[in-house]
Formats: sequence, structure tokens, C-alpha cells
Amino acid sequence: MAIQRSRIRKFLVVAHGEPLAPRQLRRLARGRYVICLDGAANDNPSLRPDLLLGDMDGISAPALRRMRRWKVPVLALTDQNTTDLEKALLWCAMHKAKDVVVVAATGRRMDHTLANVSLLRRFDRKGAVLEFRTGLERIRYLKNRRLSLAAKRGQRVAVFGAPEATVWSTGAKYPMTGLLLRWGILESVSNECTGRRFALRVEGEALLVMEEK
Amino acid sequence: MAIQRSRIRKFLVVAHGEPLAPRQLRRLARGRYVICLDGAANDNPSLRPDLLLGDMDGISAPALRRMRRWKVPVLALTDQNTTDLEKALLWCAMHKAKDVVVVAATGRRMDHTLANVSLLRRFDRKGAVLEFRTGLERIRYLKNRRLSLAAKRGQRVAVFGAPEATVWSTGAKYPMTGLLLRWGILESVSNECTGRRFALRVEGEALLVMEEK
Repeated sequence: MAIQRSRIRKFLVVAHGEPLAPRQLRRLARGRYVICLDGAANDNPSLRPDLLLGDMDGISAPALRRMRRWKVPVLALTDQNTTDLEKALLWCAMHKAKDVVVVAATGRRMDHTLANVSLLRRFDRKGAVLEFRTGLERIRYLKNRRLSLAAKRGQRVAVFGAPEATVWSTGAKYPMTGLLLRWGILESVSNECTGRRFALRVEGEALLVMEEK
Repeated sequence: MAIQRSRIRKFLVVAHGEPLAPRQLRRLARGRYVICLDGAANDNPSLRPDLLLGDMDGISAPALRRMRRWKVPVLALTDQNTTDLEKALLWCAMHKAKDVVVVAATGRRMDHTLANVSLLRRFDRKGAVLEFRTGLERIRYLKNRRLSLAAKRGQRVAVFGAPEATVWSTGAKYPMTGLLLRWGILESVSNECTGRRFALRVEGEALLVMEEK
């Protein structure tokens, strides 16, 4: 349960949603402490995590045997008031995470998808980066922040008020200059990056969804 | 383009997300005027809609040939400021829709999924019911409303503030009595129906995600 590879502050959490391709998962796992939520072990047979975490009601018998054979530490948490992903993010925060990537947090069930997207807001802390990766896209929550990311020409980008933000962009085909985005009222979808960087300034709270390239 | 089956006020919109099983789609289409968004025709080869609608940049040549063979009316709309689903919902509203079901509005791309979920709020009108179906779940937006639905014991139900609501439930395992739900702060997930009806009273704005049974 203790972090074996000491001083690692970068985490990868593998959740139960739509799984990533094994190749993408391996690439994201590099240099990160990997936490697998229990049911996610069923979907990712080649994944050997540093920790198996959850209420252990979703893992299959073969996946559990595999974890035991690999001597993966198990953190069984049965509190029903928090989801497995919430428990994992709390665990990362306790271990002074600087950078957390969550994969398979979306897709399949919409109750989990929406609950997980809302966790982006709940766990926003200064100094720690939390990002979801779907294989197709990356998703971040930004509150009163500036962000600058490497981009490619034509890369799709969308910004949502979460629930509300005024935004300014640099490097977007349809520039946002003091644009008021409100969830369910106005969002910026089907925008595109024009060059090698995409920058966003947010006053208020927003979700950024950026295509993977 | 005119509604052939006159006086139909029930619509089914088939979007580009994760497609439903053909059997589920056929069941939902019964008694409804069916609108297929252009790219969705590629995913549903056995679907013969009443109308094909969209900017026509996503439909494949074989799907378009199929639509022509079936003499499906085509409504090509090229305004880039609205998504195809938004155009379809506007079209339904223009035709005095009383009941609109949208399938495949979620899954695959998260930019589309989040934009589509936010449309539930934008298109909420008194007297018209708008519901998303994913094959696994149904999703509704409720503003200052009461709702009572047929349920089965053990059926999963989740309620989210969208962005904020106080809610009261009847027929839930974990009863909500004046519970304040706020997006990214507190939601009710992994709740369950206890009997044959599930009722919800909402002050404010909420999303209901209910398992299909």
C-alpha cells in the first residue's frame, strides 16, 4: 500500500469506463504510480498496477488471481458514500500528488461518466494537475486559470462553462475573446487549433475537451 | 421534409454517438417520426428514417445511396453555429413536438457527449418531454418539476445538480429529502429503486439518470 517507488508524485488511475488500447495505456503508465480500480482489472488483462483499490465488488475471480500472482498490494475500501474513483483521487491527494491522469473515466454508463466528470471540479487543487484521457480526448477542469498546451493545426478543441466562465483563447480557429460560456446555454464546440500552441484563460469555471493527436 | 404521417407529435432522433442495438432502436421507433442525423446513417444500416437531417459532412457514400433508394427526404442544413442534434431538436420544436427521444447522443467523443447533455437544458420546455436513451440508461433534465416513473426493485438511479437543485424522492433505497445537489460538489449516485414507482421532486435544475430495465 505504501508507495514503493518512493517520491513518485505522478499517478495513473485506471477506471471502469471504456478501456484504452493496451498500447496507449502502457505509454501513459511510463514513470507513473499506477492505481487500478477493482473492476478495471477485468478489462485490462495485461496491466500490472502498483496498487489495486476499491470496494472489490467488481473484480472477477481470474483478475483477482492474477493480481495475487503478481503480488499487487490491495487496498479494499468499503465506504459506500464515495465511488472507487473518488477514493483513488483522495488517496493520490494524501500522497501529495502533483499530476494525476485518469483513464477510462467515461463511456459505458452515463451515471458514472457524469459523476466522474463532476469529480474534476471537486478535486481541483492549486499545484496539482488532474486530467482524464479517453484515448480520443483529454479533459481538464479550469478555475480562474491560464493554460497553454502543445497543439497541432486542425486539432479539435471544445470549452464548456462548468457551470459558467468567461474565456479568452490564443491559437483557435474561432477565437474566444471574453466569451461568456454557460452550461446548457452556450458552449464552444467544434473549434480547432491553428498552430503549435493552444492557450486558454478562464475567469470562472470551465471544462476543456481537447482531441488527442 | 413535411411530416408525412400527419399529426405525429412523437419523435425519435438518432444521433452519432454509441449506437443502440437494432432491436432496441426498432422498439423505440414504433409510433414515432424518425429523424436520422447524417453520420448516424452509417452506424445503423437497417434504419429507414422518415427524415435525414444534418450538414451532410459525415454520411458515407453507401449510406447516402441507401437513403436515396428508400426515397428518404433529406434536409441539408449547413449552419456551422449549431450541431446536427441542435438542428434536429429545433426542427422537432418547430413541428410542435410533445415527446422527443434521442438515442446515441452519448459515448465516443466527450465533446459531443457534453454538448448534447447540455442541450437537455437548452431545450427544456413545458409540455414537451425530452429524453436521451443510451441502451443502458435514460437521461432527463428536470427544472422545478415533479416526475413519477414506472420502476423495478433494484433499478439503479442517479441524480445530479445541473448545476444545482434541492430534491425529494419517493421509492429510493437512500431517500432524498430536501437534499441539496450541486454539480461537482454533491450528487446522488448508486441509488436504487425500491418498488414499482420512482418519483422525484426537483426545486432548481437536475439531471436524472435511470437504468433501463
